[in-house]
Formats: sequence, C-alpha cells, structure tokens
Amino acid sequence: MARNTQVAADHNAPAVTKILAAFVANHPSRGWSDAVDAEAHRTFMNWLGCAVGATHHEAADAALAAINVLQPAAQASVLGRATKVDMASAALINGITSHTFDFDDTHLKTIIHPAGPVVSAVLALAEHTGASGREVVDALVIGIDVACRVGNAMYPDHYDRGWHITGSTGTLGAAAACARLLKLDEQQTTMALGIAASQPVGMREQFGTMTKPFHPGGAARAGLMSALLASKGYTASPKALEAPRGMMQTVSTKNDWSEITHELGQRFEISFNSYKPFACGIVIHPSIDACAQLRAKGVTPDKVQSIALRVHSLVLELTGKKEPADGLQAKFSVYHGCAAGLTFGRAAEEEFADDIVTREDMVALRRKVIATVDDSIDEASADVTATLNDGSTVHVFVARAIGSLQNPMTNANLESKFHGLSDAVLGAEQTGKLIEACWAIGNAANVQGIIALATPR
Amino acid sequence: MARNTQVAADHNAPAVTKILAAFVANHPSRGWSDAVDAEAHRTFMNWLGCAVGATHHEAADAALAAINVLQPAAQASVLGRATKVDMASAALINGITSHTFDFDDTHLKTIIHPAGPVVSAVLALAEHTGASGREVVDALVIGIDVACRVGNAMYPDHYDRGWHITGSTGTLGAAAACARLLKLDEQQTTMALGIAASQPVGMREQFGTMTKPFHPGGAARAGLMSALLASKGYTASPKALEAPRGMMQTVSTKNDWSEITHELGQRFEISFNSYKPFACGIVIHPSIDACAQLRAKGVTPDKVQSIALRVHSLVLELTGKKEPADGLQAKFSVYHGCAAGLTFGRAAEEEFADDIVTREDMVALRRKVIATVDDSIDEASADVTATLNDGSTVHVFVARAIGSLQNPMTNANLESKFHGLSDAVLGAEQTGKLIEACWAIGNAANVQGIIALATPR
Repeated sequence: MARNTQVAADHNAPAVTKILAAFVANHPSRGWSDAVDAEAHRTFMNWLGCAVGATHHEAADAALAAINVLQPAAQASVLGRATKVDMASAALINGITSHTFDFDDTHLKTIIHPAGPVVSAVLALAEHTGASGREVVDALVIGIDVACRVGNAMYPDHYDRGWHITGSTGTLGAAAACARLLKLDEQQTTMALGIAASQPVGMREQFGTMTKPFHPGGAARAGLMSALLASKGYTASPKALEAPRGMMQTVSTKNDWSEITHELGQRFEISFNSYKPFACGIVIHPSIDACAQLRAKGVTPDKVQSIALRVHSLVLELTGKKEPADGLQAKFSVYHGCAAGLTFGRAAEEEFADDIVTREDMVALRRKVIATVDDSIDEASADVTATLNDGSTVHVFVARAIGSLQNPMTNANLESKFHGLSDAVLGAEQTGKLIEACWAIGNAANVQGIIALATPR
Repeated sequence: MARNTQVAADHNAPAVTKILAAFVANHPSRGWSDAVDAEAHRTFMNWLGCAVGATHHEAADAALAAINVLQPAAQASVLGRATKVDMASAALINGITSHTFDFDDTHLKTIIHPAGPVVSAVLALAEHTGASGREVVDALVIGIDVACRVGNAMYPDHYDRGWHITGSTGTLGAAAACARLLKLDEQQTTMALGIAASQPVGMREQFGTMTKPFHPGGAARAGLMSALLASKGYTASPKALEAPRGMMQTVSTKNDWSEITHELGQRFEISFNSYKPFACGIVIHPSIDACAQLRAKGVTPDKVQSIALRVHSLVLELTGKKEPADGLQAKFSVYHGCAAGLTFGRAAEEEFADDIVTREDMVALRRKVIATVDDSIDEASADVTATLNDGSTVHVFVARAIGSLQNPMTNANLESKFHGLSDAVLGAEQTGKLIEACWAIGNAANVQGIIALATPR
C-alpha cells in the first residue's frame, strides 16, 4: 500500500517534554514578579467564583450522578487478581493488561486492537449490572463494529499522522458497547457517542512504553464513563463525529463516510478480527513466521552468517529498533523478532523477557539481520534469505503469516495460547474451566461464573 | 488575523453519529450469522487470556497503585456543595462547573481558558494532600504556563482544525501542576507530561452542549491521573510532546517550538490571562460592550430599527447562532449578546437564562441585528451602527472590550463578579469571607479554610 507516512513530521524538534519537565520540577517557589503572583490570585478567585456559581447547574447534577454510580468502589474485578475496584477503574486496568503483551486481537484493515477498549469496558460494566452473557456478546459485536467502522473511514491518514488508532476509535467502541449494555435509547446513545467523540486517546510515539497499553485502557474507561454520563442526561453534539469541527474531521484528513454506513447491520467488522500467535506488533509477524520456517528447514543460529530481510517501509518505521534494551522495546524490533523465530521457532511473551532480549547470543543474532525496505512487498508479507557460513543461501517468502485472516489461528491454537498466558496465574485446571466458560458465555445468565474463574483461588 | 479557518471541512457528511446510535440501540440481539457470533467468542477468549496473563506486569501494578490513591472516595469537595468525592472526580466536576457559564478566564493569545483544567486539578489534589496555599499558587502559575506555551506553539492551526484548545492543552497543564504539587522529580514529571500527552480532550463541535465544559473537567481529571500514574512508576515516551508521532505534531501542523522554550521561567503566560465581564464566549464581548455603550448613549430597544454589526469572520464562525433556543445556545449567539447589551447594559449569567433568551422582545431585537464579516476588523473588536426609527444613526467602535488585557477588570470588578456568582449559593456574608480567603491563599498553611468557606453551611 503506497501512502504518505510522513504527515507533518519535524524530526528536529527540541526536547520540549524534558525542558518543560525540568521547569515544572525545579523552578523556585514564587520565582516571578509580584505582578505575576497577583495575577495568579486573580485567576484563582475568578475560577472559584465560576465553579461555585454553576454548582447546581444540570450539567453538574448529571456528571455527579454518573460519578456516584462508581461508589461504593468494589464493583468489578481486576482480572487475574483477587481485587475489585470501581468499574471504570476495572475497565482501565483490564484494558491496560489485555494490551500489555501486544498479544491481543487485531482488525487487520486498520491495525485496531478492538477488544482492549470494548471488552474491558463491557465486562466491567456487566459484572456490576448483572447483565447476561448474551447481552455482553451483543455489546461486544456492536461496539467493535462502531470502532472499526470509524477506523475504516479514517485509515490510513489518521494513523499515519500519529494517532494510535486503537485508543482513538476505542473510546467510541467502548461507549457504543456500554450504551448497548445499559439499554440506552437512540437519543441517549447519540449523546454517549458524542461525549466519547471528545476523548480520542493515544499517540504512536508512546509505542514501547507503558502508555501504549494505557491507550485501550483509557479508551475503555472514557467510553464507559461517556455511556454513564449519557444515561444521567449529560449532553453532547448529535453531530460530534461528522461535523466540520467534530472528531473525525479534526483528527483525520481522510473520512470515507460510506465505510460507516455501507452494509451497517449486515456486514460485521469482527469478521475481520485476527489473533496473534506472537506477542508483539502485528507487522513483525511475517518476519517471525519466516524465520521460524527457516529454523524448521534446519537453519540454526550457529550456521548463520547473515539474514537479509526485505519488508514494507511501514515495518521498519514501526519496529525498526535494532538494539532493543528490554522486552518492551523488543516488541518494536523486527530484528528481535527474527532472532527469536530463528532461535526458538516461536515468539510468545517469554521470548520477549528482558533476560532473553539482552542475552549475548540474541544480541549477536539481531546484528546479523540486515533489513531493507521494499515497498513492492505488502505490509503483511516478509521476504527472508539466510546466508549460511558455508556460503549457501536459504530463502523463505511469507505472503500471510500464521494468525492472519488467510491463515487463522484455530480454536485449538487459541486454547493453547490461553493456557500459555493463564496457567501461571490461575493454574492449568482452573484455566481449562475458564476456557470452557468463555466458549459458553453466550448462554450464561450473567458473567459471575467467568469472573470467579478469572480470579485466583 | 488572516488565516485558514476551513481546515479539512466537509459540510456534507452524513449524520453518522445518529446512524451509528440507531444501530447500537436497535439492532436485534444476535442479529448476525453464526460465524460472526463464533468470532465474538474467539475475540472474548483471546482478550481474556491476554488480560489474565499480564495481570502481574509492572504496568498493572503502577496503574492499580494510582487508582488506589483515589480510595476511600470522600477526598475532595464539589465546590458550592456539601459533597465530597474522590479527588479525580472532584477535578472533573469542578472543571465542568467552572466553565459551565463560559464566564471563566481567557488567555487571549490562544483563547485557552487555563484555570478550568489546571486549578480544578490542583485544588482537589491539595485538599487531599494538605499542600500549602503557596504550593497551590506555584503549581497554578507553572501549570498554566505549560498549557499556554504549548497552546502558543500550536495556535491557530490546532484550534482551526477543530480542537477545543482549552481541553487539549489543559491535560498537560493539569499534569504539570499536579506533578509540581506532588513534588515529582524531573524524570517523573517528564513521564507525567508524557502520559498526559496521549489524552488531549475536546472538539469545537461540542460548543453549546454540556460536553464543552466537560473538556476542562476531563482535562483536569486526566492531568491529575497522569501525575498520580507517574508518581507510581508508570512510563511514557520522554519525547511524547515533540516527536514526529508525538502529541503536538499529531494534533497541529503549526508547531513553533520557540514558543515553549523562549524565556521559559522568565516570562509567565498567566500575565496574559484575562477575566470575563460577560458570561459567554470571548469573541462576543466587543459586540456586547459596543451595544451596552449604545444603551448608555440613550439607544434603547424601542427606538431601534436595525443594528449593523461588523466583525471578523471568526466571530460569526464561532457565535453565529441567529435564533438560539436556550441559554446554552445563546452563549454562542453574537445576536443575543447584542440584544442583551442593548436591553440590559450587561450580560452576566442571568441574561443568558432560558426565559430571557426566549422572551419575545429579545427574539425581535436579535432579528434586528444584521451581522456582516469584515476581516479588516480585529477578532477582539466590533463596529456597531444603530439605525433608529427616526432614520438617524449612532455609531460605536470598540477596539478592545472591557475585560481585555488593554482594558482589564479591576480587583473590585472581580469581587463584584464573584458575589454575583456566589451569593445565591453561599450567601453574601460567607462569599465575602471566601473572597478574603482567596486573596490570602498564598499565605495559607493549607486550603482547608477556603474549602470550608466554599461549602454551604
């Protein structure tokens, strides 16, 4: 896919984040003129009068009513822990954890990871309200449809300009799903989407830090709160998505409205969801798959002189870290992906552990990978040629990696992956029961059974 | 100021917000194929495994630690009510109320209303931590400086493209102020700003709805949480503001970095803060002032045949509602501003009451106002000519309205405005004491005295 990935890129900006941080942390108390200090007092007093004066406005009533729904706070579970928090915080934390390993689902047309924002919000809300499993599944399908359709309309411009599209569309998906679960009517749902439209979350610069998984978590929280606010009468523009100064035109130059309206209610974007076999960014998967295939052909690390990797430019833009310092950075290193594929034949979370990433043989092997850009190769493909110590070469081309729509994970693959993630937390036996409960969720009277099984004994 | 106010404007978009809302609210349960439903179950299970698997990651620990700071919840006051909520919710609610009347402060270079996000966050945090009044004032000056400097760097492009700049820069200002109050070091403060950078709030399409004041409230909440997260070890990119895919380049084409770095710590943007005499958008003020001056010259509504108003195009773009249906809409109607100025000689909150806005004589008078665009007139000016029933004309040109930097509100003006807002909530006597406490905040051992006086007896 040819496109402009250089929207508004100034690579020579001064380090203003750190410059401001030093100012904030170190500037002396009252390190300014009396006139400035007087203005601070005037600002404070004027602000306070406004806040006191509007305290009984219906907007305050509605917001306070929504906030009060979050008390008392032991409402919804942090999955995998014996800990309950208010449901908005549960949506946040579970949104963070579900994306922390970069191992969640991917809507391949947009690179949205839709479950993080949508399901984190829905499950937390359902645990508190006692909604049925069927209602949860319905809300999930519909919320994901909203997020991915808005994503389809704006992709790729929106993503190219710097938005982490999972968090920016995720707020809308979470709001839609929670509005559905709360049985809001059309008008209230319009308001929920409208409130959510003012809260897109996430920039791509955060990739490789904890703020990346914060994006689906923050979106889940914001979407849930948007639905609660709407349920209490909070208002927003009914054109908050599409208006000239609405969300979509503000955050994207491309807006193909038909992506939202065409076959709405007939075609469902969840059909194009995929699940990762590897615990890292989706664009690395073809390269890992190719190197794992090399390994299966007998190409072991000790035999390798160099690895020539040819990929689309986006792959290196997103995952071009040659010398990752830890596991989180390695998730954005196609070089580490290749080394893991060749060494282990896999790349689950444990192959991204800090002590694996910094291991001497892995460092050496990453340095043998020479990546070059070839935009005639699809983003979803990889071309790998290993040159061995004896001068011979072995070539693998992966058109579509395992886990892609064309080569999907089977249900058995998903169960195996689930055990790999959950056994250490819940034990294999309880994990097995939890898997059974997941398959049966559509028939469950409520989600308490799943919550109980996702809580360590 | 000549500039492009038509960034990416498509005025013919279908009503996708309502279309999606109807789908979310009305699509039947399981109104899709078995394949879609199966994919929903696969998505759910894959998401749950990821969430359980990462539950003990340090990101989850840090996020949970920050959330737990919000419990137990009776931490900070809703100003003007005898109600305490957790401090993040107090930041949200007080941010909403302080902007609800559109009567708060304005940093005129950027049209940012900086106190809403910054002070709402700081005061809620200070009430809980017991910080001194001096620390609150310091945090206020520094937080406002961060928000307004980032705003200066991006204005006007960022605003023109649709962002409500108060909420989009306000998250950073609130994060900076709370980081300061929490005494975070440079590195932690960098992380606080970084986490905040992923959470700009607010689109201009929301003007005239409750979601407009939600923007400073949401920014206050997000900024406070960003500082709490950073204090617990949560990480973000140290280049989250300036990187090519960081916040600023993602949300603005114009980024003048020197606006952030030049004279940092020497020049303070709070010096350019102003306070509204009128309870509506700042761009209407010159027109109200001009019409109030006409009234002072004896031009009463009964004598008026028509009012010719000439203003900059931005004034009509932002406040061109000719027939506002209620008080909230009237705040975005320069026509109502003119009618109020001519009828009452003022435009405080009560002149925007629903029953005033819909009054027959006000409707009639608004219809007599003929507004035309003249971009040779500054945004901060207004040219008004009244044609009377006898055919004579009276002309007033306002270069800078009262409340502007050139023609500022005095401290006595501010006290009178405060009484107008607060007396009905707290009574005149307590309001008087509260005003005294505001002037003395810099010397207060903590903010409990102010909080007590801002709480109705």
